[in-house]
Amino acid sequence: MFLRTVDALTDTDVDWILSRAEFHRVRPFGLNESRRVVIGLVFLETSLRTRIGFASAAARLGFSAVEVTEARHSAVSMPESVEDTVRTVSGYSDVTVARVGIELAPPYGSTRPLISGGDRGPSAEHPTQALIDVFALRRLAIPLDQLTLAICGDLGMRSVRSLFKLLERTPPRRLILVTDPALPRDDLPATLASVSDYRELTDLGAVDSLYVTGIPHGVVDETVRTRLRVTLEVLDHLSADCAVLCPLPVIDEIDALAMTDPRVRVFDQSDDGLFVRMAILEFALGQSTS
Amino acid sequence: MFLRTVDALTDTDVDWILSRAEFHRVRPFGLNESRRVVIGLVFLETSLRTRIGFASAAARLGFSAVEVTEARHSAVSMPESVEDTVRTVSGYSDVTVARVGIELAPPYGSTRPLISGGDRGPSAEHPTQALIDVFALRRLAIPLDQLTLAICGDLGMRSVRSLFKLLERTPPRRLILVTDPALPRDDLPATLASVSDYRELTDLGAVDSLYVTGIPHGVVDETVRTRLRVTLEVLDHLSADCAVLCPLPVIDEIDALAMTDPRVRVFDQSDDGLFVRMAILEFALGQSTS
Amino acid sequence: MFLRTVDALTDTDVDWILSRAEFHRVRPFGLNESRRVVIGLVFLETSLRTRIGFASAAARLGFSAVEVTEARHSAVSMPESVEDTVRTVSGYSDVTVARVGIELAPPYGSTRPLISGGDRGPSAEHPTQALIDVFALRRLAIPLDQLTLAICGDLGMRSVRSLFKLLERTPPRRLILVTDPALPRDDLPATLASVSDYRELTDLGAVDSLYVTGIPHGVVDETVRTRLRVTLEVLDHLSADCAVLCPLPVIDEIDALAMTDPRVRVFDQSDDGLFVRMAILEFALGQSTS
Repeated sequence: MFLRTVDALTDTDVDWILSRAEFHRVRPFGLNESRRVVIGLVFLETSLRTRIGFASAAARLGFSAVEVTEARHSAVSMPESVEDTVRTVSGYSDVTVARVGIELAPPYGSTRPLISGGDRGPSAEHPTQALIDVFALRRLAIPLDQLTLAICGDLGMRSVRSLFKLLERTPPRRLILVTDPALPRDDLPATLASVSDYRELTDLGAVDSLYVTGIPHGVVDETVRTRLRVTLEVLDHLSADCAVLCPLPVIDEIDALAMTDPRVRVFDQSDDGLFVRMAILEFALGQSTS
Repeated sequence: MFLRTVDALTDTDVDWILSRAEFHRVRPFGLNESRRVVIGLVFLETSLRTRIGFASAAARLGFSAVEVTEARHSAVSMPESVEDTVRTVSGYSDVTVARVGIELAPPYGSTRPLISGGDRGPSAEHPTQALIDVFALRRLAIPLDQLTLAICGDLGMRSVRSLFKLLERTPPRRLILVTDPALPRDDLPATLASVSDYRELTDLGAVDSLYVTGIPHGVVDETVRTRLRVTLEVLDHLSADCAVLCPLPVIDEIDALAMTDPRVRVFDQSDDGLFVRMAILEFALGQSTS
Repeated sequence: MFLRTVDALTDTDVDWILSRAEFHRVRPFGLNESRRVVIGLVFLETSLRTRIGFASAAARLGFSAVEVTEARHSAVSMPESVEDTVRTVSGYSDVTVARVGIELAPPYGSTRPLISGGDRGPSAEHPTQALIDVFALRRLAIPLDQLTLAICGDLGMRSVRSLFKLLERTPPRRLILVTDPALPRDDLPATLASVSDYRELTDLGAVDSLYVTGIPHGVVDETVRTRLRVTLEVLDHLSADCAVLCPLPVIDEIDALAMTDPRVRVFDQSDDGLFVRMAILEFALGQSTS
């Protein structure tokens, strides 16, 4: 069959196709045994871990993923709105995960689950990354509320904002913050502020985990980046079972030499992200049918 | 296993791989139970709905999709021909859907189904979109041959050319056309010309459906775009159960305020496109085995 | 469900998600019936056949593929290292196939199979292409060690380097080489050198197969490209059952008119590549569990 023009289809062909389409439209989900759950991935900004991680999580669950990785554009068309793109993909999918470069809005006229893969704006968050981070903290030998946790880097990042909100629900014993005046930061939630203080990387004291946030390229100069970098010297000050975590990517926030230290567990954290994303997709599907 | 060089493979390994490949080559389809139908998607031009829609339709049917979304190019290679790219993907797939930026040609030396996702040239068509559009018209309460249908915008678009050809087979009762001399248009098929007249958007009279074609960016000036835009005022002239349809994307052909009117059913039309594409893939597979 | 901020999740929701993630983490592979094998595809350089071929091979085996097709980059981020990207995807996948634009290195801290899709550097190879090429040679009526084989073009290409290594294990009866002093070439392995000589395309004598390597765009001038091009005239000198092979893409290495000659079996070779890639993935999975 070569279908370049509708002339290639007889009237009978057209009727067969449109009747079959109606059959699919009205058929109850449960009667379609080969049907697979579809996860829509709309990533109009670059993403490695979140996009591929959800695609792989979908496959692990027996689902399929469909991906939009750039805004519609060409020499002869203006881009359609982000909202229309998200709404369209949502209509083709059971659950949609989206990173759209602006504050994410719920799709109009659709009640299907929509999950942010990290958004932008003054209240930007990255909820799925924060769940992965809390999962990594939970895997440490020490219960969350007895933990002494240090967080180093840009405390205004979207994933940190989400993480602070989750930590606020179960505050650690101590929270040590390492940052720079040149970097933005939100006011800490009160329950966290009461257990927090600010220190230098080489003066953390006994911490159970050091969480390294990314520092966006270009927002601070090299002097500040150097001051906030986890080096072999910084690791020398940490205890033998302190876990260094980071949502990745690492550009230079952890020195290349330090990356090979067994206390740096950033790839374990990344690998475990797969299981958290599987659970998030299942949670979303449960919400969509209840 | 780390396979960077063939030196990593023993002679036994090489024999195992090549013998196993021969096993796959000669094995009848039916004996491979885990084998999934593969849909090749070659989209050398930007596409959202057609590409993602067929990918999702494939998943709904239990198939897998593989995608080529840009022409081969790099600093050290000239692009291969579009025909070779389509032929290659066709060899890896059971059905291929292609939008290649030129008039689509059948792949040489392959009898596997090839479906246009919209092509270019003087006789360009977009047959699968037209099937989706007719499906949307069929879902209205009124039979197609009793319908008063208005079509507004660029009547020379490839999807409109395909739609006119399908409407010619079952002409509506009345066809009202709204366009501008600055926009191209084909001669109407005779059976449609006899039931057609040209009007303004604010003077449609009683129509059962208003179909809004896209207007490519840059081909007409803002004055013309404004004259052809569906606004709240235009909607005021339409009956309470008139359905406004559009193949999407909407840039400004329907005003943002008008988009929220319940008579604007463009996302229902888009959602239903999934079922039509499922039927098209099944039809193509039926053609390939018969 | 609309998950833009973690505020949308109750404490119970968070607990459910993190407990479920732990369930997935510890669950033995065999108890997850819907789980599908995941093939990670990291192609930071353009690829058609290798990338799509492995994606399709995965689908034919009932597996799923996840793809990274560009290095991480955006206005606000520096790219992460190639090694980190490969390691991350390896953690989400059962087998990873990678083409990264530099010499491929094994992922640190991961023992999962990593297969090169063609790398770069002084010892660059393309092992999976060479296996496909040997498979094509094996399908000829003549056993490999009785074959008179001509190879024409850039003999320094990575796929040719891998092919020479495989041919060295089972040398053909005669090896005829056609190239140009302007093109790089490695020293031939001794076992091949002893059966080889250099000739012109129009003076090949009786050969069972002519293998045409690509010639990268820009490395030689048009005069050289013309001298090494397979034209109808070249085909006139070949026997009726000589098979012309080429790993593709063909830019101008085989003349467009010559491409339609039935002795040019480059698309059969490409189609069969699917079966070889299926076998390679199965081999890698066998290695990962043994």
